[in-house]
Amino acid sequence: MTTLYGYFRSSAAYRVRIALNLKGIDYDQSPVNLVKGEQREAANLGRNPQGMVPSLVTDAGVTLTQSLAICEYIDERYPDPPLLPADVTERARVRALAQVVACEIHPLNNLRVLKHLVGELGADDETKLAWYRHWIAEGFQALESLLTSEAGTDDFCHGDTPTLADICLVPQVYNAERFECDLSAYPTIQRIVANCRALPAFRQAAPEAQPDAP
Amino acid sequence: MTTLYGYFRSSAAYRVRIALNLKGIDYDQSPVNLVKGEQREAANLGRNPQGMVPSLVTDAGVTLTQSLAICEYIDERYPDPPLLPADVTERARVRALAQVVACEIHPLNNLRVLKHLVGELGADDETKLAWYRHWIAEGFQALESLLTSEAGTDDFCHGDTPTLADICLVPQVYNAERFECDLSAYPTIQRIVANCRALPAFRQAAPEAQPDAP
Repeated sequence: MTTLYGYFRSSAAYRVRIALNLKGIDYDQSPVNLVKGEQREAANLGRNPQGMVPSLVTDAGVTLTQSLAICEYIDERYPDPPLLPADVTERARVRALAQVVACEIHPLNNLRVLKHLVGELGADDETKLAWYRHWIAEGFQALESLLTSEAGTDDFCHGDTPTLADICLVPQVYNAERFECDLSAYPTIQRIVANCRALPAFRQAAPEAQPDAP
Repeated sequence: MTTLYGYFRSSAAYRVRIALNLKGIDYDQSPVNLVKGEQREAANLGRNPQGMVPSLVTDAGVTLTQSLAICEYIDERYPDPPLLPADVTERARVRALAQVVACEIHPLNNLRVLKHLVGELGADDETKLAWYRHWIAEGFQALESLLTSEAGTDDFCHGDTPTLADICLVPQVYNAERFECDLSAYPTIQRIVANCRALPAFRQAAPEAQPDAP
């Protein structure tokens, strides 16, 4: 059995849930409560020395970490339906869109960074929120520009089926909505996310649908 | 001809230079001076709406962005020598190691974030340096732990040839040395980086060897 160690609100775990659902893979979930600090307890550090989620324990008993690496593993191990196009240049485009989220937005706005801003730099709530919204705006402006200017965009970030790019985009938008970011300047992002949310694989991966959601 | 738009000190451009060199691909370089703000000028924004480097213009005239996506493209387009192992589980390990750098360390410590800390949060030099060193320490502790505990580690992060993980590690260590981080707690990282630096592909990709280096 495949087991996902995650947390309902973790964007990175959310990505992996979407990938597993799109592939139709049956999996167990074992929650790691990030607010209670369970990611830093021995049980989780044994799986994930970074003290993070997600970790995926495969049906062969191997533990994998880092959400994008896990999604690429899922795509290589279970090729159908594909999460990346066949053409090498198109694959590069999809990965780049995914990495705008995974390397430029999310790392600056996750829980450990926000906690560090408050605890170490003495940021107040207003400063923390401004920080969060700044990096969302920077990243989403770039994404919107890429999605509107490049020919590959269709119902989804690339073409008419979901790819790794949509898998990263939807959790980031969920997160931005939670922090009440103004998303009106990103109509293409919003249109694509609505298309994703119409699919059961995305709906069933949503934070509120997870066993550890309140 | 393949053209790399980069900057000698950009870690992300440095990664792409290593990948191109490992594959033996002949390429032109066109510098974008990040300190002068050239990444935000129209010429660069046309290539890269994020206002970043690197961009790679392929011999087919297609512009690619995001360094990891570019490295994966290079690996798929020019398979020999491979930058990823053949086995899917090993591929996931290499990508995860690369992503510890590319998704957890570098995004927090690049120039735009340090500038934002100073300009928007009023951080002084000491605070900025403490921020930089904090995320290096967090990330390198995790990497050292992964590299010492997992069987795949050998002369390089994975096995006895360089992979995507080494391509990300070496520029991050260069950067950490520039900020005078204490790396004595990471002997495995240091050993692997020394092995990489012994190879011409890595030496020729080093910042000081680039045409735009002072």
